Amino acid sequence: MEQYFVDQRIENSQLILDDKEQYRHIITVLRHKVGDELYFVDNTRKLFQAKLVDIQPEKAIFEVVESKLSMTELPVDVTIACSLSKKDKIEWITQKATELGAVKIVFFRSRYSIMNWKNNVVDKKVSRLQEIAKNAAQQSKRRVIPEVSYLSDLDQLNNVSNDLKLVAYEESAKEGETSILAQQLQKVGVNSIIGVFGPEGGFSNEEFQSLVDHGYQSIGLGPRILRAETAPLYLLSVISYNYELRMNEE
Amino acid sequence: MEQYFVDQRIENSQLILDDKEQYRHIITVLRHKVGDELYFVDNTRKLFQAKLVDIQPEKAIFEVVESKLSMTELPVDVTIACSLSKKDKIEWITQKATELGAVKIVFFRSRYSIMNWKNNVVDKKVSRLQEIAKNAAQQSKRRVIPEVSYLSDLDQLNNVSNDLKLVAYEESAKEGETSILAQQLQKVGVNSIIGVFGPEGGFSNEEFQSLVDHGYQSIGLGPRILRAETAPLYLLSVISYNYELRMNEE
Repeated sequence: MEQYFVDQRIENSQLILDDKEQYRHIITVLRHKVGDELYFVDNTRKLFQAKLVDIQPEKAIFEVVESKLSMTELPVDVTIACSLSKKDKIEWITQKATELGAVKIVFFRSRYSIMNWKNNVVDKKVSRLQEIAKNAAQQSKRRVIPEVSYLSDLDQLNNVSNDLKLVAYEESAKEGETSILAQQLQKVGVNSIIGVFGPEGGFSNEEFQSLVDHGYQSIGLGPRILRAETAPLYLLSVISYNYELRMNEE
Repeated sequence: MEQYFVDQRIENSQLILDDKEQYRHIITVLRHKVGDELYFVDNTRKLFQAKLVDIQPEKAIFEVVESKLSMTELPVDVTIACSLSKKDKIEWITQKATELGAVKIVFFRSRYSIMNWKNNVVDKKVSRLQEIAKNAAQQSKRRVIPEVSYLSDLDQLNNVSNDLKLVAYEESAKEGETSILAQQLQKVGVNSIIGVFGPEGGFSNEEFQSLVDHGYQSIGLGPRILRAETAPLYLLSVISYNYELRMNEE
């Protein structure tokens, strides 16, 4: 059953869908009929299951049939911040990070980034990634569309206020660092986590030191070298397992 | 530093590299010089750091400089079995599953698989995937090249002898199943795990029941719907975290 984000508050058990693009997609392209049911997430992040009860020329009327639906968001807010890379990779990271529950996806330029965005194209590129995030969020039945953004300078990550500030550093893995991530994930009272991932060529010593000086913990993600687009997915999977699966088991 | 798998046993602190393709790549393409160091994994899975000491017309002589190098293989053997899908997806799965440590990667045909391979092309397709696994294994500094294979029938997975037999079932996630994976990963004496992942359309009831009847545990991978190519990466990341990072922390 498809899911759509609607820019309104669903109240009174009814939804009037008059967004041109969504109406076109649901009624004209997919040809839904009276009686069909779809999921909608409103602008308060609530998820509803609703039945199509009337089709008019420019709007479709839905009746809510179920409003107590299970939570699909991670219990902690996770930001994934990655160095700019080729289009394929960052689109893939955006899509997969959305499937795996990130609420913010940041791309930044660092010294050894293999790509660079000129100022005049940033908005267009971020828009495209934002669209990818939206589609992935709908497919994954998320309640939130992750916010995609771009930072021209890694320094802008220094003073973020996340409870856990983690930087995945290849050198840590090489040195056999295995315990910091697990320790950090056992902390009490964690509401938000940021994970920062460097480019294929790694961070410069200065960049890494600056992150550490601003409270980032350097973590190893196992002994194998993970590609730039795989490492964020490892962290998100582990965060999901830690907060959604493991804690239920204990 | 690049890594190469050599089809010989490295002994006596010396390696004579006479494989035509590897010689060509190392000496002619990459133009390594005497004094350069590379990693080699021999056919006993041992990793060596070796220095190029002599270049002859058809062979290159290396001297081992370091042979006690850290373990990059998971402490449990993991098989990832996925339903056949489009070329892009299965190539991604092969590459990423290799980065994340799988030792066997199996593609199978199930009722709702969106792709099907005719008998006469299976070998060629598996060969190509095997090559992808080999390259990814070298890049990730693995000691083992995962074995890629194809099964024409899901039933062939029924009687595998892995210690943990897991099937990721979307319905389980929907029903809010959260604890079986964590419980399974706490078992003592686990040396091998198989994770089976269905197609985009899911398993048929009969297929799922058959797996369960043959000892497979149905696991949820969190409340978000994961795409067919993401779910195996979630499981591999969690397995790495459980056996390589978390157990060290306790």
